[in-house]
Amino acid sequence: MSAPADLLLTDIAELVPLAGPPAPWRGPRRTLECISDAAVAVRDGRIVAVGPRADVEASVRAARTVSAGGGVVLPGFVDPHTHLPWVGSREAEFLLRLEGKSYADIARAGGGIRATTRAVRAATTAQLVAAARPRLDRMLAHGTTTAEAKSGYGLELEAERRQLEAIRVLDEQHPVDLVATNLAAHEIPDEWRQDRAGWVETLVETILPQLAGLAEFCDVFCEEHVFGVEESRRILTRARELGYRLKLHADELVATGGAELAAELGAVSADHLAKTGPAGIAALAEAGVVAVLLPGTSFYLRHREHAPARAMLEAGVPVALATDLNPGSCLTESMPMILTLACLQLELTPAEAIVAATINAAHAIGRGHDRGSLEVGKLADLVVWDVPTWSYLPTHFGVSLVRTVFKRGEVVYPRGLP
Amino acid sequence: MSAPADLLLTDIAELVPLAGPPAPWRGPRRTLECISDAAVAVRDGRIVAVGPRADVEASVRAARTVSAGGGVVLPGFVDPHTHLPWVGSREAEFLLRLEGKSYADIARAGGGIRATTRAVRAATTAQLVAAARPRLDRMLAHGTTTAEAKSGYGLELEAERRQLEAIRVLDEQHPVDLVATNLAAHEIPDEWRQDRAGWVETLVETILPQLAGLAEFCDVFCEEHVFGVEESRRILTRARELGYRLKLHADELVATGGAELAAELGAVSADHLAKTGPAGIAALAEAGVVAVLLPGTSFYLRHREHAPARAMLEAGVPVALATDLNPGSCLTESMPMILTLACLQLELTPAEAIVAATINAAHAIGRGHDRGSLEVGKLADLVVWDVPTWSYLPTHFGVSLVRTVFKRGEVVYPRGLP
Repeated sequence: MSAPADLLLTDIAELVPLAGPPAPWRGPRRTLECISDAAVAVRDGRIVAVGPRADVEASVRAARTVSAGGGVVLPGFVDPHTHLPWVGSREAEFLLRLEGKSYADIARAGGGIRATTRAVRAATTAQLVAAARPRLDRMLAHGTTTAEAKSGYGLELEAERRQLEAIRVLDEQHPVDLVATNLAAHEIPDEWRQDRAGWVETLVETILPQLAGLAEFCDVFCEEHVFGVEESRRILTRARELGYRLKLHADELVATGGAELAAELGAVSADHLAKTGPAGIAALAEAGVVAVLLPGTSFYLRHREHAPARAMLEAGVPVALATDLNPGSCLTESMPMILTLACLQLELTPAEAIVAATINAAHAIGRGHDRGSLEVGKLADLVVWDVPTWSYLPTHFGVSLVRTVFKRGEVVYPRGLP
Repeated sequence: MSAPADLLLTDIAELVPLAGPPAPWRGPRRTLECISDAAVAVRDGRIVAVGPRADVEASVRAARTVSAGGGVVLPGFVDPHTHLPWVGSREAEFLLRLEGKSYADIARAGGGIRATTRAVRAATTAQLVAAARPRLDRMLAHGTTTAEAKSGYGLELEAERRQLEAIRVLDEQHPVDLVATNLAAHEIPDEWRQDRAGWVETLVETILPQLAGLAEFCDVFCEEHVFGVEESRRILTRARELGYRLKLHADELVATGGAELAAELGAVSADHLAKTGPAGIAALAEAGVVAVLLPGTSFYLRHREHAPARAMLEAGVPVALATDLNPGSCLTESMPMILTLACLQLELTPAEAIVAATINAAHAIGRGHDRGSLEVGKLADLVVWDVPTWSYLPTHFGVSLVRTVFKRGEVVYPRGLP
């Protein structure tokens, strides 16, 4: 008895399924289960069989067979933290930082997020879409098939709305699936500097309610000089009432208790966490909040201290990785680059980094049920890598080793392949 | 009166010529001269006109006009330090290093260079060529049009010869121009461990003379546990008599006086230099030796101390950048990645990093006379970048922003363009 399939992908030297119970992965690991000489069968965009080639070939009759050319197959990467829809560039700040100015110095001088806010407020939805599309192309070229995307450069109702609309348009038009987050609470806009409480009121009474239909998640930048723990609690509590799921930028520059707040509120993820201490780690582990670590950002901002990733793994915190793609503090679309940084800076093993960029990254955006691993019933989002073995992937950096990307069973990169 | 040209490349938003006197550039700089709305004309693979579009268009009649689409044009990168021809991979070492083993620990345990030596000795020239070709493709895709390539994994006459032959074949077959370096003095092979003096004799009496026709440069790994200053002087003095130009791996892990030796012998470049002190810096500046810095290697080996690049610039040492592409201590083909690391780790400005990767890199391999800048008479090796301005380039990392690569006036990347 063989079942029908649209596609049989075969001649896979090694396939890493990352299969397991439907929950984020916890704990340290040195290796990953892998299947040699594997195959995958797809029907209607979902995996109908995966395993040793002989077993898969015997179990399906496929309309079409494609060779993976002896490559290594992993699930498509999920990038669970990006600031995708922006316009403009901030190369002048990069030089200032090299000359010794801090992120906070640049922000206080009117640069940083606020510089991008001026550009985004002046942009149409179409301009936001056009600027973001090549970023999604680069994501795909580096193996990312799903990404989270935040607003947060508008900092006023209509500009935030245009950012979220741009995310919706891009999700429809581009092969990379997007999950939208309302991050209107990203900064205090200039016009509210003298009335912080008024801005928090505007967020909870106007912006969050009005945009609830455009974003699945709500996020707050909880940090010294931005939103304190009390303000963050107020905003996220209201967001939860409005039906948003919760995320939190926490403890990036200073430990303010952000990790504990994320745990208290039942956030899906807490992100950054470079300065989180033992109490925050224990709280995340206890509540099962996914820690989304952003090693590209500490690399780019030249921080010497990095997130306590090994302590998190030892404590049982589920760890995920993301690019933090944004124009000021981490300008990269490449998840493989983030894997290399995670190994070199955070001392993750290649196995831990791959878990963090696939199944745990999917859980960090509430998509662990249908992607992040190669299992029957999940989306056929998978990447053929031109590497000798899976553990080689983070060892070769700064380039793309992607051979082919399949999204829902279709070749989406490189374009023009059968 | 207009002169004939094969190609006119126009619609260049910004062109950075890096033109100047025929010598390596010295000293700090925050900016670079650039020409807005520029054009370049090419005949027989060389630049016949470059400058403001109106001037260039008035001065030539071109057989063919190509639009740069509003991109930014720089000279093709020159990568002056690579270990290109190897086979095999060493991902297991990467994990060991994360777990705390040092480069020296791994070398003493039979890993490191010696692991690749076992693989290279078993490989044919054709296998070396096949393994290296995709590396050259990735170089081209990241804007490198000329590279240096070293032997040094054979560590016996015939295996070193096959590596140098592979470099010659690749130079003929691939658009990236290669300059060959004999680095037989890369390590003490296992069979000579009990007789170091015998290995030095073999180098100076047999391997260097026999392979003199296959390599323009000779290089020595002058470092604790490898070749001391006296051994290095002996080998390089002999190499100079045989007609080689000189390079030196110096002061990478320990300051052994390598920089001073490079200056004493009139080496074209001294490479690594992470531990070089004031005396070494003064010697390099005085002798005009190009310092080839390899920030990817200290990144990859997780060293906290980096080469004293700013002190070198202040002292007037000509500074160049290279990938150090190799399977163990720096696995990347991307010069843009190296530029980002040079800014973040070495505190080079984007302007200094671009000088170091173009004109000074060309001087580091004796090619400053015909490439590394966009000037009349030089090779038409140039790259159109998809960036808003030249200083943006090192701020966006881990991906390729190359739109088109021209080598000797022909489009070589992406393939299939007119």
